[in-house]
Amino acid sequence: MNVLWLLAHPDHRSLTHSLAREGVRHLRDHGHDVTVRDLYAMKWNPVVDADDFSHDPTDRLLVGAVAKHAYRRGKLSADIRAEQELVLASDVLVVQFPLWWHGMPAILKGWFDRVFVNGFAFGVKDPVTGATLRYGDGGLRGRRALVVTTVGAREAAFGPRGIHGELEQVLFPIQHGIFHYTGMEPLPALAVYDADHATEDDYRAAVSRLRQRLATLAETSPVPFRTQAGGDYDDDLVLRPHVAPGVTGLAAHYA
Amino acid sequence: MNVLWLLAHPDHRSLTHSLAREGVRHLRDHGHDVTVRDLYAMKWNPVVDADDFSHDPTDRLLVGAVAKHAYRRGKLSADIRAEQELVLASDVLVVQFPLWWHGMPAILKGWFDRVFVNGFAFGVKDPVTGATLRYGDGGLRGRRALVVTTVGAREAAFGPRGIHGELEQVLFPIQHGIFHYTGMEPLPALAVYDADHATEDDYRAAVSRLRQRLATLAETSPVPFRTQAGGDYDDDLVLRPHVAPGVTGLAAHYA
Repeated sequence: MNVLWLLAHPDHRSLTHSLAREGVRHLRDHGHDVTVRDLYAMKWNPVVDADDFSHDPTDRLLVGAVAKHAYRRGKLSADIRAEQELVLASDVLVVQFPLWWHGMPAILKGWFDRVFVNGFAFGVKDPVTGATLRYGDGGLRGRRALVVTTVGAREAAFGPRGIHGELEQVLFPIQHGIFHYTGMEPLPALAVYDADHATEDDYRAAVSRLRQRLATLAETSPVPFRTQAGGDYDDDLVLRPHVAPGVTGLAAHYA
Repeated sequence: MNVLWLLAHPDHRSLTHSLAREGVRHLRDHGHDVTVRDLYAMKWNPVVDADDFSHDPTDRLLVGAVAKHAYRRGKLSADIRAEQELVLASDVLVVQFPLWWHGMPAILKGWFDRVFVNGFAFGVKDPVTGATLRYGDGGLRGRRALVVTTVGAREAAFGPRGIHGELEQVLFPIQHGIFHYTGMEPLPALAVYDADHATEDDYRAAVSRLRQRLATLAETSPVPFRTQAGGDYDDDLVLRPHVAPGVTGLAAHYA
């Protein structure tokens, strides 16, 4: 497989980078092609602005429409186009980061803000029906995505009733809102907890868990989100009454 | 009141900026002091790195510990210290942004990554008991926070059973994971939907809703998250069995 590995930590001596090196080696040893995007080393610019779109600064910057226009005409900036080529060439995205403020570090969030533009990742229409493809289908269908995250907190605090919120639901904006939305299959996230106090034994255990997840990338069942094409949602994109009756909030979108 | 208004959109002619101007004017007309941080105009750097901490680059960058050390010794970079002063001087944070990939634009996420460091916003201990203060208490107690967000989707799709997930739960990593965690009171978010197609009438309606929310900043009930001090969580930070018995996921943390 072709694996695109996104990495966002400022120190190459960190637990994050050490795990990345082990993971990349494991994949290559098993015959996969891996491209690593070390966003800090690349000095990736995470800030969307008019320069991304060759946009006339005297015109209003309606980001979604302007991005789609630039994408279709090949006018996106070169750094964005290079990342899009890598995404299209990939079968799997590994997205690895320390969990900062319950989400991605800004440098990584801005990779999605800038690369996953309208017309490329979303806002794609079915050529026959004209329907907008999303949630289970879309511009990036056919790919899988795996979050690997290092977390300062202990595991129980991100468990089903832990104070920080159950990790999979805290990651819903990424797993469902980015990956599933664009047609990718989100795999259950791999979290390494209590990351600031990892011993040698903890590190070996984390490497072992990572290798196991990488060895099963192709066959792991994705997070079972409902799909738009599956018929669970009506024309207003609301769950039909007979689907998970009475359930509201994020829990309703897991089949 | 002292209001700190964070703003993150690249175009000053956008709906986001137009609403911000109306909101700031309204607050000032009612006698409040408002400081606007227009992160794009400031060219805010959203990327955490060693330069933030006057950190010796030959030492490992353990971000949490290094940040806390730098904070305590007054060694954080000047741009971070300036924002922290503004936070401390504020009674209310208004955090306004277009919803990009179900979260904050990177430039704004990186404001929290860099400004809300260990020892300042979290990792603060009770001087008597030594317990770490979080979720309802912490470094920023006594402040309120209001998200104002412009959203491309229509309202139903972010409703209780909408396909994108109920907005308050999609915003959980911000409302609960940042504001509530640091002791601030998160107010229900104000969302302006279908923002790419706003008519003059839609705009007037949005301004009216914004003014109404700003006029009631002091008395609006916050999102009713459970607090750590309230005794609902055990020493492992897990909900006690008698609290919301059987409920898992984010829904369990609303009282």
